[in-house]
Amino acid sequence: MPMMNNSEHQISPAYLREPVTEEGRNLVELLSARLPEVAAGAADNDRDGLFPTDVFNAFRKDGVLGATVPKELGGLGVDRLYDVALALLTLAEVDASTALALHVQFSRGLTLTYEWQHGAPQAQALAERLLRGMATGETLVCGAVKDHWSAVTTLTPDGNGDWLLSGRKTLVSMAPIATDFVVYAQWRSEDGPIMLTAPVVSREAPGLTVLDNWDGLGMRASGTLDVVFDNCPVAAENVLMRGPIDAADDAALAGQTVSSITMLGIYAGIAQAARDIAVATCGKRSAAPAAAIRTLVAEIDARLFALRSTTGTALAEADLLSADLSGDLAERGRRMMRAFQYAKMIVNELGLKIVNDCLTVVGGSTYVNTHPLSRLYRDIRAGWFMQPYTYPDGVDFLSAQALGIAHDNDYMKARAAQSAASR
Amino acid sequence: MPMMNNSEHQISPAYLREPVTEEGRNLVELLSARLPEVAAGAADNDRDGLFPTDVFNAFRKDGVLGATVPKELGGLGVDRLYDVALALLTLAEVDASTALALHVQFSRGLTLTYEWQHGAPQAQALAERLLRGMATGETLVCGAVKDHWSAVTTLTPDGNGDWLLSGRKTLVSMAPIATDFVVYAQWRSEDGPIMLTAPVVSREAPGLTVLDNWDGLGMRASGTLDVVFDNCPVAAENVLMRGPIDAADDAALAGQTVSSITMLGIYAGIAQAARDIAVATCGKRSAAPAAAIRTLVAEIDARLFALRSTTGTALAEADLLSADLSGDLAERGRRMMRAFQYAKMIVNELGLKIVNDCLTVVGGSTYVNTHPLSRLYRDIRAGWFMQPYTYPDGVDFLSAQALGIAHDNDYMKARAAQSAASR
Amino acid sequence: MPMMNNSEHQISPAYLREPVTEEGRNLVELLSARLPEVAAGAADNDRDGLFPTDVFNAFRKDGVLGATVPKELGGLGVDRLYDVALALLTLAEVDASTALALHVQFSRGLTLTYEWQHGAPQAQALAERLLRGMATGETLVCGAVKDHWSAVTTLTPDGNGDWLLSGRKTLVSMAPIATDFVVYAQWRSEDGPIMLTAPVVSREAPGLTVLDNWDGLGMRASGTLDVVFDNCPVAAENVLMRGPIDAADDAALAGQTVSSITMLGIYAGIAQAARDIAVATCGKRSAAPAAAIRTLVAEIDARLFALRSTTGTALAEADLLSADLSGDLAERGRRMMRAFQYAKMIVNELGLKIVNDCLTVVGGSTYVNTHPLSRLYRDIRAGWFMQPYTYPDGVDFLSAQALGIAHDNDYMKARAAQSAASR
Amino acid sequence: MPMMNNSEHQISPAYLREPVTEEGRNLVELLSARLPEVAAGAADNDRDGLFPTDVFNAFRKDGVLGATVPKELGGLGVDRLYDVALALLTLAEVDASTALALHVQFSRGLTLTYEWQHGAPQAQALAERLLRGMATGETLVCGAVKDHWSAVTTLTPDGNGDWLLSGRKTLVSMAPIATDFVVYAQWRSEDGPIMLTAPVVSREAPGLTVLDNWDGLGMRASGTLDVVFDNCPVAAENVLMRGPIDAADDAALAGQTVSSITMLGIYAGIAQAARDIAVATCGKRSAAPAAAIRTLVAEIDARLFALRSTTGTALAEADLLSADLSGDLAERGRRMMRAFQYAKMIVNELGLKIVNDCLTVVGGSTYVNTHPLSRLYRDIRAGWFMQPYTYPDGVDFLSAQALGIAHDNDYMKARAAQSAASR
Repeated sequence: MPMMNNSEHQISPAYLREPVTEEGRNLVELLSARLPEVAAGAADNDRDGLFPTDVFNAFRKDGVLGATVPKELGGLGVDRLYDVALALLTLAEVDASTALALHVQFSRGLTLTYEWQHGAPQAQALAERLLRGMATGETLVCGAVKDHWSAVTTLTPDGNGDWLLSGRKTLVSMAPIATDFVVYAQWRSEDGPIMLTAPVVSREAPGLTVLDNWDGLGMRASGTLDVVFDNCPVAAENVLMRGPIDAADDAALAGQTVSSITMLGIYAGIAQAARDIAVATCGKRSAAPAAAIRTLVAEIDARLFALRSTTGTALAEADLLSADLSGDLAERGRRMMRAFQYAKMIVNELGLKIVNDCLTVVGGSTYVNTHPLSRLYRDIRAGWFMQPYTYPDGVDFLSAQALGIAHDNDYMKARAAQSAASR
Repeated sequence: MPMMNNSEHQISPAYLREPVTEEGRNLVELLSARLPEVAAGAADNDRDGLFPTDVFNAFRKDGVLGATVPKELGGLGVDRLYDVALALLTLAEVDASTALALHVQFSRGLTLTYEWQHGAPQAQALAERLLRGMATGETLVCGAVKDHWSAVTTLTPDGNGDWLLSGRKTLVSMAPIATDFVVYAQWRSEDGPIMLTAPVVSREAPGLTVLDNWDGLGMRASGTLDVVFDNCPVAAENVLMRGPIDAADDAALAGQTVSSITMLGIYAGIAQAARDIAVATCGKRSAAPAAAIRTLVAEIDARLFALRSTTGTALAEADLLSADLSGDLAERGRRMMRAFQYAKMIVNELGLKIVNDCLTVVGGSTYVNTHPLSRLYRDIRAGWFMQPYTYPDGVDFLSAQALGIAHDNDYMKARAAQSAASR
Repeated sequence: MPMMNNSEHQISPAYLREPVTEEGRNLVELLSARLPEVAAGAADNDRDGLFPTDVFNAFRKDGVLGATVPKELGGLGVDRLYDVALALLTLAEVDASTALALHVQFSRGLTLTYEWQHGAPQAQALAERLLRGMATGETLVCGAVKDHWSAVTTLTPDGNGDWLLSGRKTLVSMAPIATDFVVYAQWRSEDGPIMLTAPVVSREAPGLTVLDNWDGLGMRASGTLDVVFDNCPVAAENVLMRGPIDAADDAALAGQTVSSITMLGIYAGIAQAARDIAVATCGKRSAAPAAAIRTLVAEIDARLFALRSTTGTALAEADLLSADLSGDLAERGRRMMRAFQYAKMIVNELGLKIVNDCLTVVGGSTYVNTHPLSRLYRDIRAGWFMQPYTYPDGVDFLSAQALGIAHDNDYMKARAAQSAASR
Repeated sequence: MPMMNNSEHQISPAYLREPVTEEGRNLVELLSARLPEVAAGAADNDRDGLFPTDVFNAFRKDGVLGATVPKELGGLGVDRLYDVALALLTLAEVDASTALALHVQFSRGLTLTYEWQHGAPQAQALAERLLRGMATGETLVCGAVKDHWSAVTTLTPDGNGDWLLSGRKTLVSMAPIATDFVVYAQWRSEDGPIMLTAPVVSREAPGLTVLDNWDGLGMRASGTLDVVFDNCPVAAENVLMRGPIDAADDAALAGQTVSSITMLGIYAGIAQAARDIAVATCGKRSAAPAAAIRTLVAEIDARLFALRSTTGTALAEADLLSADLSGDLAERGRRMMRAFQYAKMIVNELGLKIVNDCLTVVGGSTYVNTHPLSRLYRDIRAGWFMQPYTYPDGVDFLSAQALGIAHDNDYMKARAAQSAASR
C-alpha cells in the first residue's frame, strides 16, 4: 500500500499497517531486516528462558537502540507512538519477548525526550546524557517500577547532599543487558509528605544486584528480572523529583500512557502471528475446511481487524494529544489514559480469543511446547498484566471517568500511598 | 475537539468523532439542528410504525436530501463514506429508523454519482436527471433489491423497444415517500444468458403498488415496505444494464460496499445512544454504583470505543480504495468488501452486547416499550440483516478470502442464479 | 452435604426432560392438552397486549390453577420445584406470557402451602382459606412486591384493630384476573422499628384499583399491571407479619427461592422454542446448510443442554434443601439462593445467546413482529429482571458469599430499608 | 425417553459433588488419602515433565489401579461413569496430569469389562486376563489410538496364523509405566475390505519402543508419549476384531463415549482448583475487593456451577443409557455421544473462561511457571483436544444430528478411511 496522502483531510485507516512518518518507516525497515535472525533463536530462547543478547547487539549496530532518541541527539528520531507500536508489532510477529525487551528502551527514549524538552535544567542534563548514550547503543535504560512484595524501595539522604537507594524491584524487562535503571522510589522526609522520586542508577553501582530469576509462563526471553538495591549511592544530579504522593495530578497520566501504550503493538503482533500460522496450516490441508474452521477463520480475521483498528485509533489519539500541551493538562492526561485503557481491554479480550481459536483451527499438534502457537498462547496472556492498570484497576478508572466518581488515577502514587499506609 | 491538522503525516483517530471534509461538517451541522424535531416524534412513530414525513420535509428544506449529490449538480457534495456514516450516526443517536430511511437516499446519491462519473452515456444521463432532482429534494430514490419470496422480479421487452417490469420487492426502506425506485430485475432472453438489470421506475408508473405492510421488530418508523410491480412500463433509457448473472466480477463489490457500508454508522449511533442513557441514569442515582455496574460501564465504554474505531477504520479504508481506480478493480472490490464485512461482524456483536448491558445497568424499567432502551434493543438487531451478506454469507466470503477458496462473492448475481436455478 | 439416599444408586440426568413425581406428570399432561389452544392466541395476544382469560378459564376447569395446592386441600399436590419448572417450560415453549402469569398462581400455592404447614395459627387459617379457593380455581392470588417509584406502600392501623393499606405496586403479573393480592408493605410504628408485613387484599376492597397499563417489550400477554391502594381496609386476620426490616435473616432466602426459581423453566422453554423453530426452518431449505449455520446449530444445542442441565441441577438442589428443615436454616436459605442465582446468571446469558443465534440462523424474515422468533427475542430479555436480584444484586450476593463479605442478602428488607432511609 | 424409575421421586443435583455408589465413594476416599502426596510432586513434575511413578506405585498398593475392574475379577467394581469422573475430578484438583494418566487405566477397565461381559469368547478371555492383572495393579494398559502423522499403523498376517504390527502411535498417556498397549491398527487384506483391529501388545514385545518425547504445553507429567512398532509379533488370541472400516455403525459411539467421557471430570477439577486459588488469594488481601474482582468472582462461581451441572448431567445420561442394551443400539450410541459432545463444548468454553478469569483475579504474580495458576492455564487447554472429536468434528457431528445430515459419526473408522484413501 502506498504512503497515504493526507493533505486533503483524508483520514487514514488506523489499523496499524503503515508507518505515518519517514522515521517510523526507517525503523520498521531496519527491524524487518533482522527478523530472520530474531526468528532463528526464538524457539530455543523461549524453551531455555534465554535473553537474545546477540539480537540486541545487532540492534545496536543498526542504531535501533536509539530509535526514539531525537535526531539532534544522534537518534533515529521516531516520535510517534503509532510508529513505535507498529515497529514492535512487526518484531512481535516473530518474537514477542524480544519486542517486549526492546519496548523498554523505546519507552525510555520517549519519556526521557520529554524530560529533555520540558524538564527542569538538571533533568534536562540527565536526560541528554542518557539519550546520547542510547543513540549510540552504549546505554540501555530499564524502568524499575514495581516493588517486590517484600520491600518498599526508598531513597534516603546520605548526609552529604547525595542519596542512598534500598529496596527491590520486580518484573524489570531487558535487565540482563541494562546499563542504567530508572527506579521509582519513595523519600520519607522527617516532617514533610512522602515524596516520589526517580533515581537513575548505573548497573555498576555498589550494592546493586540483578537477579537471574525469570521463569515466566510466557515472554520467557524478555529478561524480566528482579533488581535489588542495598544502599546504592546515587548522586543528587541523577535523581528526578516527582512530587508528593498525596498530590494526585492527572497530568501525569500522559507520561504513563506514553510509557506503556506502545506495548499494545506487541499483542497485536502476537495475534497476527497466530492468525497467519493458522491460515497457513489450513492451506496445506488437502480436504475442504470443516464448517467450524470456516466460521472460526472468519471470526479470527474480523477480530484481528477490530484489534488492530482499536489499537491504531488509541495510538493516533495519544499522538494527537501528546503533541498538544496548550490545553488542560489534567484532562489531556485523562483522555490519553482513557483511549489507552479502552484499547487495552479490547486487545486483551480479542487477542486471547484469536490465539485460542487459532489453536483450535490447527488442532492437537499445537499442544507441545515446540509448536509456535503454544508459545503464542503463553505470550498473549502477558498483556493482561501490562503496566499501568490491571483489569480491576482499568475498570475502576474507566467507570470513575464515565460516572464522575472521585478516584485516584495515578496508580504509581496510589500504590505508593497504599504501601505507605500499610506500614 | 479542533479540526485535526493532517498536513504532517498525522494519522487521525478513526473513531467517528469528527467529519473529515467541510462538506461532511456542513451535513452534520444541518442534521444536528433538526435533532430535537426528530427526537420529539421518535417514540410515537416507533409505537405506531409511522414514517416521519414531516422530518423528511424539513430535510428537503435544508438540502439534506441532496447531501451526497455533487455540488455541480446542486447537491451538498458530501463524497466521503466516513462523513456520510458519521452523519447517520448523529441522527441515529436520536432515531435509528429515520437514519435508516435517510441512508437510502444518501446511498443512491453515492452510487448514482458513480454512474454519472463513470457510466455509459445513457447511464450518465439517467443519473444526472435523478441527481438533480435529489439535490432539490423533489426526487427520493429507493433501492429495491430483495425479492419477496413469492416471485422473481423480471424485466421483459414490450415489443416496442421498451420494457415491462413484474414482480415484488420487499424490505424497501423510505418507500412511503419515494418518488422513484431502482429495481434489481432479471431479463431472461430467449437464448442468451440471464441478464441482470436495474430499471428505474417512477412511483406513478401504472402497475406499481406500494404496500403498507411494515410491522418490524424494530426500525419501525423506517417505512420498510413491499413494492409490487404488475407489468409496469419502463422506457429503455431508464434501464441500467448490469451484465449476465453468470459473469462473476468482484469489481462489483466496490459498489455494493459503497451502497451499504455507511449503515454501520447507524448501529454505532444506536450503541452510543444506549450508553449515554445508561450513564445518565446512573448519574441520577444517589447510591454508589454496585460492583457489577462499574464493571459493565467500563466494558460498555471499551466496546463502544472498539466499535467506533473498527467502523471508522473500515470506512476510511473504503474511502481510500473508492478514490483509486488505477489498480486491479476486482482486488479493490474484495478489499473494500473485506473491510466492510470485518466491521459488520464486529459492529453486530459489540452493538448487541453494549445495548444489552445498558438494559442491565438501567434495570427493569427498560422492559416497557415506552423506554428508549427498549426501542434500541429492538433496533440494534436489524444490523445483523443489513445488505449485503447475512452472517452466514459473511463467514463464507471472509473464510473464502482467507483460505483461498473459490467462492461467488457477488451476492446479487449469486442470488439471482439461485432463484433462476430453482425454477 | 449428606450422602444422597438413592436406593438404586442411580443419578438421573437433570436436564428438565421428565417430571420426577406422578403429580408433576399429571400437571404436564394437563397443560400439554391445552397447548394448541394456548398457541392459537399467542401471536394476537402478544401484538395487542391482551391477557389470555379464556386460557385461564380452561386451566380452571382442568384444576391447573390449584396445581401446587396440597391434595388434602383439593389441589393437584405438585410439590417439587423441579416439576413446577418443567410444567412452566412446557407451556412457555408455546407462550411465555401465559407461563409467566400461571407462575404467579403456582408460586403462591407453594409459598402459602409453607404457611399452612409451618406458620402461626392465624397464618395457617389464612393460607388454608386461600389454598382451598385456589384448588377450585375460584381464587387467583398475585404477589405484589415491587413498589412503584412514586410511593412506598404502607400499612397503618385503622384504630379499630384492623389496617389501612396505601401505595402503589408495579409489575404485578396475572393482575387482570386476580381475586386477591399478597402485598408487601411497611408498617412504621411510632417508636419501634419499621415492620415488614404482607396484607392479603381482595380485588373487591374499597380503594383498590388495578390499572390497565402494561406495554411491555415482551411478555406482553402476561397482564403485568400496576395496582394502586388508597386506604384499602384490611382485616387483622388477613395480615402476615414478616418482622422488622433491620433484622436480616438469611432463612428468608429459602422462601424467596421457592417463590421465584421455577421461573427459570420459562426461559428454558423460550430457548427451546427458539431452537426448534431454527432447526425446523433449516430442515425446509433445499440447499446444504452454510458453514456458519452448522457451527451455530451445534453451539445452540450445546448451550441449550447446558442451560437445561444447570437449571435442572439448581431446581433439584432447591428441592432437596426445601424438604429438609433439620439444619441451620440460614445456611439452608443461602444455599438455595446460591444455586438459584448461579443458574439465573447462566440462564440469562445462554438464553439470550441461543435466541439471538436462532434469529441469525433463520435470517431476516425474523425481523417482523409476526415472526415467532421476534416474540422470543423480546420475551427472553425479561429473565434478566426476574425477582429476586437483578444482575448487580446477584453479583453482590454471590461475591459476598464466595469472599465472606458482610452483605444484607434479604433484598426485600434491604429495599425497604433503602426506601425508608431515602425519606 | 422413558419415565425414569426412581422410587423416591427424588432427582439428585447433578453437579458432581457426591458419588452415587458405595464403590465410587470408596474410590474417592482412597484417592483423597493420597492427595497430599500427589500435590507434593506436582510442581516439580510439571517443570521437568516427569511422570509420577511413585504415585502410581502408591495407587497400586491401594488397589486404585483396578478401580474399574469388576469385583468378581478382584477389582473395586466402580462401574458408573459419574463416579469415575468424580474421582478424576478430585485428583485433578491437585494434579491434572496424574488424573489424565490414571484415566487411561480407568478407561481400559471400563471398556475391557464390556468385552468381558458381551464379547466373543476369545475377547472375553483376553479381557479377563488383562482385568485380573489390572486388579492387582500388575497390569497397566494404555490405549494407543492416534497414528503419528508419519505412518498408518497396520497389522499383517505373519503366515503362521499370528500377526505382525508396524507403525507409530502418538499421544499415548501413561506410557512410561504401561505393561500393555491396546493398539488401533488396520489390516489390509488382499481382496476384502480394510479391517479395523485392536491388537493388544506387551511392552516387552520385540520391536516395540516407547519414545521419551513429551514436552507438552500442559499435562506435562502425564507421560504422553509416542510408541513405535516395528514388526512386533502379536498372537492371534490377542487381537480384537472391530470390523470393516466402511461399515459405519453408530452403536460403536457408546464405547467411544464410555472410553473418554470421564475425562470431563479432569477439566472440571482444573476449573475448581483455579477458582479455589483465586478465592483464597482474595481472602488474604486486606483491602476490600475491587468492583471487577467481585464481578469476576460471581461469574466464576456461576460458570463453575454450570460446568459441573452440565458435566454431571451428561455423565448421568451416559450411565443410564450404558446400562440399557434393550433398544436401538445405534440410537443409544448417538444419544450417548450427543450428551458427551454437548458437555465437552461447554466444559472447554467455560473451563478456559474460568481459569483465565482466575488469573485476572489473582494478578501478575500468576505469570510465572511456578505459580499453580500458570500450570492450570496450560493444563486446561488440553481439553479442547480430547478424544474423540476435535471442536470442528464436534460441530460436524452435532449439526448433522440436529439437521438430519448424513455423516460418518465413527471417527475412528472415518480417520482410518481417510488415511487409506490418501495412500
